Amino acid sequence: MNFQERRTIRKYKKDDIPTEQLEALLFQASRAATMGNMQLYSVVVTRSEEMKEKLSPLHFGQPMVKEAPVVLTFCADFNRFTQWCKQRNADAGYDNILSFMNAVSDTLLYVQAFCTLAEETGLGTCYLGTTLYNPQGIIDLLKLPKLTFPVATITVGVPNECPEQPDRLPHLAYIHEETYQSYTPNQLDIIYYFKEQLEENQKFVEINKKENLAQVFTDCRYTRKDNEAMSAGLLEALKKQGFL
Amino acid sequence: MNFQERRTIRKYKKDDIPTEQLEALLFQASRAATMGNMQLYSVVVTRSEEMKEKLSPLHFGQPMVKEAPVVLTFCADFNRFTQWCKQRNADAGYDNILSFMNAVSDTLLYVQAFCTLAEETGLGTCYLGTTLYNPQGIIDLLKLPKLTFPVATITVGVPNECPEQPDRLPHLAYIHEETYQSYTPNQLDIIYYFKEQLEENQKFVEINKKENLAQVFTDCRYTRKDNEAMSAGLLEALKKQGFL
Repeated sequence: MNFQERRTIRKYKKDDIPTEQLEALLFQASRAATMGNMQLYSVVVTRSEEMKEKLSPLHFGQPMVKEAPVVLTFCADFNRFTQWCKQRNADAGYDNILSFMNAVSDTLLYVQAFCTLAEETGLGTCYLGTTLYNPQGIIDLLKLPKLTFPVATITVGVPNECPEQPDRLPHLAYIHEETYQSYTPNQLDIIYYFKEQLEENQKFVEINKKENLAQVFTDCRYTRKDNEAMSAGLLEALKKQGFL
Repeated sequence: MNFQERRTIRKYKKDDIPTEQLEALLFQASRAATMGNMQLYSVVVTRSEEMKEKLSPLHFGQPMVKEAPVVLTFCADFNRFTQWCKQRNADAGYDNILSFMNAVSDTLLYVQAFCTLAEETGLGTCYLGTTLYNPQGIIDLLKLPKLTFPVATITVGVPNECPEQPDRLPHLAYIHEETYQSYTPNQLDIIYYFKEQLEENQKFVEINKKENLAQVFTDCRYTRKDNEAMSAGLLEALKKQGFL
């Protein structure tokens, strides 16, 4: 598959994904880079209708959770490694924020490697950003022990749609030579011009009665109030899981 | 390329990587999933000898930094988006930990997509986990503004080695059905058996005069003392960059 042709798939056929196929993909993906070869991640596989019903509200009712044959919750995991250390009489000092970030790094590299491999075999994936919005609910449902944390959720299935590809920023928007270059007002206008003039985005501005697209993001989609409330929950969950 | 055949490359030929080739790869990688299509990342490209000299100690002198033609520092970036919002009179509320984690997620998916694409064209990459060890030094050197944060560093070049592939855990070590399954002592023994009996790992145990491999990790490689000191620096840098 040409990676440039990829798109997020939110609608799936009823076809199941055989366990052996899924496990093979999850194993292949483990070739991604990992900190000190510790593989600081775990994956919880959801296939049962009952668990999907319970996961669904934790992802704000996004229909992919109930409609995909498989939902994967990728977790940062220092529990397994720490348990091993304890069993070997070794003092595991991984109950801190650096260790959390190391495990998050391992996990997200692994997630992307998995998605690329799955898509290469013809499967479709959708990344649910909602995992970090309500981690405690997911932790409780999936019985995630201390020193683990849900980081990303991927729904997977055989594609039943071929949506338009969304726009992307011009690459000069995010490439900096030698040091970070601040953006001039004129550069920002250019970088966001294409996105702002898209018909569907102009429609969002109109429907939401906003002055411009940026306000759709800040006032409707990702508001300060929501971000601050969810940040408090995230920090609380990090403490409970033993990383803060 | 077969992803299962990939390996980290730490030794590079002198060949440069043309700007157009690098930019094309960085653009192709932007097809990775991104939160609300915000593309919350930036990449600082280091090619100059002078900057490599200065980056090198921040990565604890790992030789790849000076020897690779290109060093890429991938940064979580809510600055660009926030600047755009400000310019559009929109109240950007992204100075919090949830927004940081969202940007980290975007960034790491992007990093892995880039690495896979680069490797497919025959380039070799090495992921430097040291980026999070001393973020403030990197922030200062690369002049990273508030609401940006260095998350991952990748050295890239034409491979000049083909090292052995390191071991990986059996996939059942990190796959859980429906809920997280705790590990029994016996399972842990099995999961880590292959790693523990590897000759090179047994040598590490001997050289470091430890009882077992777990102690090499906890007492030599990733110690509680180091992790706690670096965690303090990480939290301090997160505050300074406006995310906490």
